[in-house]
Amino acid sequence: MASKIASTKSVKNQTALLAAGHWLMLSVAINVGFLFKLIHDGNLRIDWYGLHNGQDNGGHLSSYAAEPKPDGQIQNKYINLDHGDPTMYQSYWKQMGDRTDVVISGWQSVSYFSDTKTVCWFLEPGFANAVTRLHKLVGNAETGNRHIVVGTGSTQLFQAVLYALCPYDAPEPMSIVSAAPFYSSYPLITDCLKSGLYKWRGEVDDFNTDEPYIELVTSPNNPDGSIREAVFNGSGQILVHDVAYYWPQYTPISSRADHDIMLFTLSKSTGHAGMRLGWALVKDEAIAKKMVKFIEISSIGVSKDSQVRAAKILDVISDSYEDSKTSNESKRFFDYAQEEMAKRWSQLREVVNKGHAFSLPTLPVGECNFSHHTFATQPAFAWLKCEQVDDCESFLKKHKILTRGGVHFGSSKKYVRASLIGHEEDYNEFIRRLSLINSVESP
Amino acid sequence: MASKIASTKSVKNQTALLAAGHWLMLSVAINVGFLFKLIHDGNLRIDWYGLHNGQDNGGHLSSYAAEPKPDGQIQNKYINLDHGDPTMYQSYWKQMGDRTDVVISGWQSVSYFSDTKTVCWFLEPGFANAVTRLHKLVGNAETGNRHIVVGTGSTQLFQAVLYALCPYDAPEPMSIVSAAPFYSSYPLITDCLKSGLYKWRGEVDDFNTDEPYIELVTSPNNPDGSIREAVFNGSGQILVHDVAYYWPQYTPISSRADHDIMLFTLSKSTGHAGMRLGWALVKDEAIAKKMVKFIEISSIGVSKDSQVRAAKILDVISDSYEDSKTSNESKRFFDYAQEEMAKRWSQLREVVNKGHAFSLPTLPVGECNFSHHTFATQPAFAWLKCEQVDDCESFLKKHKILTRGGVHFGSSKKYVRASLIGHEEDYNEFIRRLSLINSVESP
Repeated sequence: MASKIASTKSVKNQTALLAAGHWLMLSVAINVGFLFKLIHDGNLRIDWYGLHNGQDNGGHLSSYAAEPKPDGQIQNKYINLDHGDPTMYQSYWKQMGDRTDVVISGWQSVSYFSDTKTVCWFLEPGFANAVTRLHKLVGNAETGNRHIVVGTGSTQLFQAVLYALCPYDAPEPMSIVSAAPFYSSYPLITDCLKSGLYKWRGEVDDFNTDEPYIELVTSPNNPDGSIREAVFNGSGQILVHDVAYYWPQYTPISSRADHDIMLFTLSKSTGHAGMRLGWALVKDEAIAKKMVKFIEISSIGVSKDSQVRAAKILDVISDSYEDSKTSNESKRFFDYAQEEMAKRWSQLREVVNKGHAFSLPTLPVGECNFSHHTFATQPAFAWLKCEQVDDCESFLKKHKILTRGGVHFGSSKKYVRASLIGHEEDYNEFIRRLSLINSVESP
Repeated sequence: MASKIASTKSVKNQTALLAAGHWLMLSVAINVGFLFKLIHDGNLRIDWYGLHNGQDNGGHLSSYAAEPKPDGQIQNKYINLDHGDPTMYQSYWKQMGDRTDVVISGWQSVSYFSDTKTVCWFLEPGFANAVTRLHKLVGNAETGNRHIVVGTGSTQLFQAVLYALCPYDAPEPMSIVSAAPFYSSYPLITDCLKSGLYKWRGEVDDFNTDEPYIELVTSPNNPDGSIREAVFNGSGQILVHDVAYYWPQYTPISSRADHDIMLFTLSKSTGHAGMRLGWALVKDEAIAKKMVKFIEISSIGVSKDSQVRAAKILDVISDSYEDSKTSNESKRFFDYAQEEMAKRWSQLREVVNKGHAFSLPTLPVGECNFSHHTFATQPAFAWLKCEQVDDCESFLKKHKILTRGGVHFGSSKKYVRASLIGHEEDYNEFIRRLSLINSVESP
């Protein structure tokens, strides 16, 4: 798709740029590059590096708008379940009224520095405290003897980890591996600048596991929700745990995660994707310092405004569980989110089980130490398999359901990842269309 | 300095990590890397890549705190003029009281998306409007027929520009050049991941100027305040203009800047460094789209909270000039900032001219189209030359003044860059110490 965009674009560009010789030269160079890429890599990597905008669905991202459509119009529109945009949570926060409001004055957030006494000098103390408090309450991660490193989403923290763990002067880039299906952004981020420090390998078995390599362990896994441990187990293994979804709305909390490097994000815990805020819990101080260094070099810190807001939101959640007065007033956050996910998964499984067109993975059941409920993992994404067609993404696209195809996750085209945490209207329409497809395809 | 930190750290680390074989291997690899670096590059690049924390001044950044010291204590403390932390502006924004307050509710900034109809889908429309309005008011940049791309500071935008301009499959990395003295972060950012797309060359004359290369034109220049144009002038030239300091408090606005790619930042325009917000004005849509793609890959957008706050602050500034009612109430932003910079530069030139220890560059005088005042460029940094010692940074460090040495800017050790936009107390103490040195060194 990107190659198509690039080519169409380049015709226009080249016409406009004829007057400026160096611009033209650049344009040609870029296009030759794209062409080479197309020949060399096939479609897959083109799409990864290109504009994942579905230009052929009406241009830009306009048909993918985050806002729900007015009733009656939705039936002819594209439903965008490609991104994991957590708009499901918005209605909860609206119910909370002004309880989570923050007021920020013009004289605040002026300095680059937040707390010069800690390793992460751009980490707001209030945010650090709120993170520690919430982990203690939920019991999903060990925070003792750890450094908190804040990042512009866990996406930036992932890059900071790679920078911190890969020696600058190693003769070869370090291998970055992960069992398929893996999060589609990992290869993209790892290879986007052709770094000499690290290189995406994904799921491979032809590398020397005695040499240092980094294995990404995402648990619950994105895209398929499986509960994971390291699989490569070489003596050179360095583990990075992406635990973005290890929250009680998605999976039973079985124990405090206690890994060397753990990555979390606001987007998937409270649903505040627009804040672009994540945090890492890091055992080793030298590694935490190198991560901080990377964030210093690449963005000189992280928005203080978002940290201030996030602190407030996390504290309101903790308050609601710790203070019996507020807890009686309205539903508490994780109770709401757990019920909402349970409802959506129940609807999804019901519609899938009614026919033979689709299937879903079986996910483990367990008791949650936090809620004391016993339930099966109910991930933010459905890892949906088309049982009767080979290209599930294209098939669903014909039904105006936009998902991300399995190839992006190192898997088969028979699978797609579909976000389940969008607006209720879109979710209901998704279920309606699946039901329709199932009844037609499963006579 | 970083090598020292790394070595001390590594002794401790290695002891603690003996139990875990792979961690030890990593640690050794990192240290071998550092050692190689020390031998290969000398001290200079070590310091660039290391923790620029002045560990030998009392640990961490604690002696560099952004908050001013209580009276009487300041005389024995380190004055940190190394970073361009714009805390000077804080007192102005305090005077503005609640006029720039923003209230953000918990249900806001939930989605990743801001405006899916524009190229930069994570750009808040209110922020885009405020940016355009302010540029029109000040007359410092052409905004017509341009795309606004928002970034996590202009630092991220710089990386986005490199990604957008350098073809992915070129046989060699593209040369990134800039006349010395150049901004010290440019080589750091460019080379930190050993990208195969681009490579820092700085001020060189041994590259093929007929092949595409990127020249960074910073005007007014960081560190020396000079007004610049492209200097390499090869046929392969692609220009990127860093115009972070092209605001009326620093230099007379002589015309609307009208370049292909221009980078701005909140840090230096309004003094809100903690927001981590910058914007690029980009003529070519294909380039703007690739910049957006980079920001999507590296941080999935930019904090909405900071964009909302910044919109408010920029609009309050524009209001004060466009609405005669509010303009009578208090000093307007650029008037205040221009006067404050003038006062500081007058004090600095006076103390430097009193002796023979230091000198400052002569900067151009012109009439400002915005303020209609005629004045000399008065940069955010002093590019100070020690006339009687070879290592100006070390010399000032003995007097507990922390600055950034000329070598970091591709220049001589006889120069340092000192920030002039910090807290008033620190600035006054800096002037007092310079005066003392000058009287001792210039008998």
